[in-house]
This record gives sequence, structure tokens and C-alpha cells, in this order.
Amino acid sequence: MSKFAWVTLTTNDTYSLGALVLAHSLKRAKTAHQLAVLVTPNVSQAMRDRLKEVYNVVQEVNVLDSQDAANLALLSRPELGVTFTKLHCWRLVQFEKCVFLDADTLVLQNCDELFEREELSAAPDVSWPDCFNSGVFVFKPSVDTFAQITEFAVKNGSFDGGDQGLLNQFFADWSTADIKKHLPFVYNVTAYASYCYLPAFKQFRDKIKILHFAGKLKPWLIQFNSETKVASVSSEYAHAQDLIQLWWNIFCENVIQSLSTEMQTPGNVASDRPAGEMAQGSTTLEAGLAGALSQLRIGQQRTPEQEAYENQMRRQCWESGQIDYTGADSFENIWKKISQTLERKTDKESEETGSS
Amino acid sequence: MSKFAWVTLTTNDTYSLGALVLAHSLKRAKTAHQLAVLVTPNVSQAMRDRLKEVYNVVQEVNVLDSQDAANLALLSRPELGVTFTKLHCWRLVQFEKCVFLDADTLVLQNCDELFEREELSAAPDVSWPDCFNSGVFVFKPSVDTFAQITEFAVKNGSFDGGDQGLLNQFFADWSTADIKKHLPFVYNVTAYASYCYLPAFKQFRDKIKILHFAGKLKPWLIQFNSETKVASVSSEYAHAQDLIQLWWNIFCENVIQSLSTEMQTPGNVASDRPAGEMAQGSTTLEAGLAGALSQLRIGQQRTPEQEAYENQMRRQCWESGQIDYTGADSFENIWKKISQTLERKTDKESEETGSS
Repeated sequence: MSKFAWVTLTTNDTYSLGALVLAHSLKRAKTAHQLAVLVTPNVSQAMRDRLKEVYNVVQEVNVLDSQDAANLALLSRPELGVTFTKLHCWRLVQFEKCVFLDADTLVLQNCDELFEREELSAAPDVSWPDCFNSGVFVFKPSVDTFAQITEFAVKNGSFDGGDQGLLNQFFADWSTADIKKHLPFVYNVTAYASYCYLPAFKQFRDKIKILHFAGKLKPWLIQFNSETKVASVSSEYAHAQDLIQLWWNIFCENVIQSLSTEMQTPGNVASDRPAGEMAQGSTTLEAGLAGALSQLRIGQQRTPEQEAYENQMRRQCWESGQIDYTGADSFENIWKKISQTLERKTDKESEETGSS
Repeated sequence: MSKFAWVTLTTNDTYSLGALVLAHSLKRAKTAHQLAVLVTPNVSQAMRDRLKEVYNVVQEVNVLDSQDAANLALLSRPELGVTFTKLHCWRLVQFEKCVFLDADTLVLQNCDELFEREELSAAPDVSWPDCFNSGVFVFKPSVDTFAQITEFAVKNGSFDGGDQGLLNQFFADWSTADIKKHLPFVYNVTAYASYCYLPAFKQFRDKIKILHFAGKLKPWLIQFNSETKVASVSSEYAHAQDLIQLWWNIFCENVIQSLSTEMQTPGNVASDRPAGEMAQGSTTLEAGLAGALSQLRIGQQRTPEQEAYENQMRRQCWESGQIDYTGADSFENIWKKISQTLERKTDKESEETGSS
């Protein structure tokens, strides 16, 4: 068994969709190493069961319930809640070395050579390239390092309020000390920023190993036609259409079958989560996408009602990602209507087949 | 006399405004080194005279008229015309080492330590940070290097059609070989991209040494009120308002007095320039800004007509920068009207004072 692991983090069932696709992308790329996922308390049991099918380790992280230094730190700096969740990857000391991947990344080619790099190796951030982007980084699990970063965070905070600012402050010599700790950008290509310099994207696209859907537009929020299985991207993403399509291909081939309405739906996402768990820009609407997507019938002709539902679902999720709640009621109404329709259909089928 | 020089390039009188402000920003930062500017044939004699007042060397570059290797190369790849213009900086062999600065950069602090770096040192590009941005780079003038790059360009072209793609292909190991050749980002901060990661901009802003107005929105196209001397920036640039204002402060204190209508005005910019000289996205309207700005009366109360003129001038230049020519006629009409008004005013003053 490899002593190396890929590690990701999910804070709700929707982000878990990303984690599931990510895991399958790693397996398609034939990684030789283990997979671990950190989950926060509000990831449903049904989703954890699915994650266990592809991840060797599914580790709950509950900073707020713990009695350790991280919890004490949070008492004085509650705004760092989500940041601290990600830091818990350093506690996976059953592994010698790990590569952290955000759940909104997609592995396109085998990247096992990343484990030859030392802590802390990462690729530059596109907006301020003397900072590394914390969506992909090589690290060495260590309880000592975890304690040091925690202590540092309490003392210094994070200049951007998140893990990226904190980790850049802690590993402050990244930009000047060692070129080997600069991962080539092809290990963390920001889908959106590459639009700003298309010639470079075209020049290097065959070398891209990991695509990162940083920002608001996640692949699971992109318009997808369940009948034709085609994702429709806006013009800013046209250059990366085939890569976004790849995310949905993996979703259709490996993920959707395992989803169920036991997962979070727009109706059953707890809205009273502690502030520390409001991670990754999630809202109750967006967080319920896993349960909603479980209702899709991939490759089958859609009724006009289903088509309208899919369009509305994606639009609503996108709007909620933009923190625009204006259409929330409308979305919930549609969800209710679809649920009623499905129930009626099931009742009707039961009558026809005579099953109970 | 220093054997080191700052080098820039201007291809018309409008970009020369940038070159003039840049030179004064270097002098304000008390550089110990020389200043050199490459000018293409269509920079007016009046503007060259002004450039000579602040630059130690004003060197005409006329690739198309020369009989050298660069010209031969251009015959086979005419699309590289502008690219080749910039490469001529390697021929400034009277200097031991140089730092190239695009004319749309602004030096905020003394940066003489850059001359301790070796060729080719540059800062990462924000859109594809494994490429360096060619707006600021340290190089060693050499006729041999010039010939090698020229030969390389003819053989390989440029992946982005410009000097940045070409230089990144030629100095291909920049991203992996030597961290010392990675200039800190503070030596080439892209004004626009920093908006995407404001916490980093705020965290490092006191350390910014060179600001780069890369992209379409140049400081000379930003709305400026000649009466209050205040530049009005859009929300994307609000974080950098004081830095854009600094550009205009230098313009008002050191540059505008030396402008004249002998420089290019919207009416007298040659539109039949060879393709190789259509550099830096210039249009005849935008290229005539120097002559137009010479008419401003800084710090004086504006007539409503002057105010309308200033607003219209900037808007038209901005639109022409966007390659939107729809308002061109309207702008030229306004220019004519203002010219007529100024002529009438001059005639009237002549009558009043009795001067000829």
C-alpha cells in the first residue's frame, strides 16, 4: 500500500460531487497512490457511503467539537473556521507525503511525479503570482507542523481571510527560495484566467495536467443537457469546453448512478450550520444539488417538464452561487412540483405493475 | 556615466506621453542610471525633441528600412514587425546591462537593484505565470543575442504573435531554471489583474515598485479633469486610484508644458503607416492625443465647451482603444470645432493686444 495520498476536502454534498469526479479522474489517470477525503459534519451519511467506495480514507473533521489547540484558536478567531478545516490535512500522519487537491479540480493526466517534490510545493496564483494557489500543494503530514500553523494563524490571522493567505504567510519564502517548489502551472491551471491569454492556453494545453475551476463557476453549475449529455459553456469557457465536458462525462459514467435523494436536496439542507462550516460559498440551494441531480435520467428523452426543471435548476444554482437569492422561492416551488410529479409517477407505476 | 540603462520603446506620440511620464518617474525615484528610448519613424520631431530632454539616448528604430538580418527576416514573416521593433533593444551595446520597461509602466520606488540581476530576469505573467511578462525585463545588450533571437523568430514564429511569446520561447527555461531570474511580482504589478485578488494587493501594496498598465486601459485614456487635476477611475481600478492619479500628477507637473500642436493631433496622424509600425493597438485618433492634450489648461476654470471636449476626447480615445470606430466622425467634428474656437480666441486676443 502506498504511503502517499491525494487529499481533498468537502463541506457539503454538492462539493462532494466534485470530490467524487476528482477521485475517478485520479483513477482514470492510473495513480498508484491512496485517496483521502476530509468531510465536515454536514456531509450526509449517504454521501459518505459513496465517498468510501472511491476514497481509501474518509475522515471527519469537526473543528468546533474538538478540544484541541485548533478549537482554542478558533475561540479567539472564529472567522478562520473554514481555514482551519483545510489545515487538518496535516494530521493525516498515516501518510508520508500528500498532495492536496481542491474538490473543484480535475486531473487530466497521471501526476504521480508530484510526490517527488518537497513541502511546500505549489503553483503560482494567477492574480498575484508571488503567492502560490492553495488549490494544489505538496505537503508532509505532521502534528508539529499542524500545531505551528495553527499557532501562527492565531498570532497573525490570514491576509485574505482564507487558507491561501495563511499558508502563503506561513510558507513565506516560497516565491524566492527554491524554484523546485514552484510547481509548473500545468499542475493548477485556472480555467477562467487562461481565457485572458488564450495563445498560452493553446500553446500549452496538451501539457495541462490538472484543471482548477477556481471562482464561482463550478462544473456542477454549468448548464448540462441530461438527454444529449452535453455541457453548454459560456464564451469565456469556450476554449475549455472539452475539459468541462470531461467533468460531466466522468459524472455520467461513474457518479450519477450512486446518487440518491437521501443526499442533501434543496429542501433538506440544514440552514443552521455553524459559521465555521459555511465553506466554499455554499448556500442551501446549491448544497442540495446532489439530491437534485440524482433525479436526472441520463441519455433518456426528457419531458418538457424535466427539461424546464434542469434549466431552472442550473440557473438557480448559478444565481445562488452569485449570492443572488431572488429566485429561491421559485426554485423551491419547482422542486416541490417535480417531487410531486415523481411521486405521482411512482404511484402510477405501482398501480400498473401491482407492486406495493 | 553609468554603464547601465533603463530602456523603453514608443511607436507614436501618444505612447510617448507614457515614455515621458515613465522617465520622470525614474528621475523622481532618483535612479543613478541612464535612460534610453527607441522610437519608430512616425514619432514626430517635436516629440523627439521633448524625449531628448529626459532621455540620454533617443534611438530611431526603422526595421523596414534597414538592410540587416532583421529586415530579411521580416520579409518572410511580416506579421512580426512590431515584435522585431522591441528586439532592437539588444543592439544598445553602448550599455553593459539594461532593464526594459514598457512605456505603460510607472516606477513608484527606486529599483536600481534590478541591475544586479542577470539576463533574462522578469516577473511572471498574471494569466499564465509560467510565462514571464515582457513589460519589464533585465537583459544584456549583445549583437550576437540579437541575431540569435532574430534567427529563432524566423524559424519558430511567436506563439502569441508578439514579443512576449517569442521571448518566452527563446528563454524557455525561465520558469524552471533559476529562482533569481524570477523578479518579484512587485516589479511588474498588473493594475487590472490585482483587482481579482484585492487582499493580496492590499497586503503588498506598499512594496509595489513598478505598476504596469497592461491591456487596453492606459492612464492617458482615463477620464481626467483638467480643472481639478483629478483622474476618475472605474470601480475595477478604484483600489489603484492613487497610483493612476500619480501618473497624472507627473503628467501635469513635468510633461504637459512641453507638449505642442506640432505633435500628432487627431487630424494629422498619418494613416498610411506600414503594417510593422501599427504598434501598441494605436489608431489615428488615439495616436493624436499628445497634440490634443497640449490644448488643456491645467488648473484653470473650464468653459462648458472645454469640459465637453475633455469628456468627449477621453471617451473617444477609449472607444478607439477598444477598436470601436463608431464615434470617429463625431470626435473629429468636435476637434474641428475646438480648433476653430481656439483660432477665434487667438484672433480676438491678437486684436485686443495689438500683437501680430
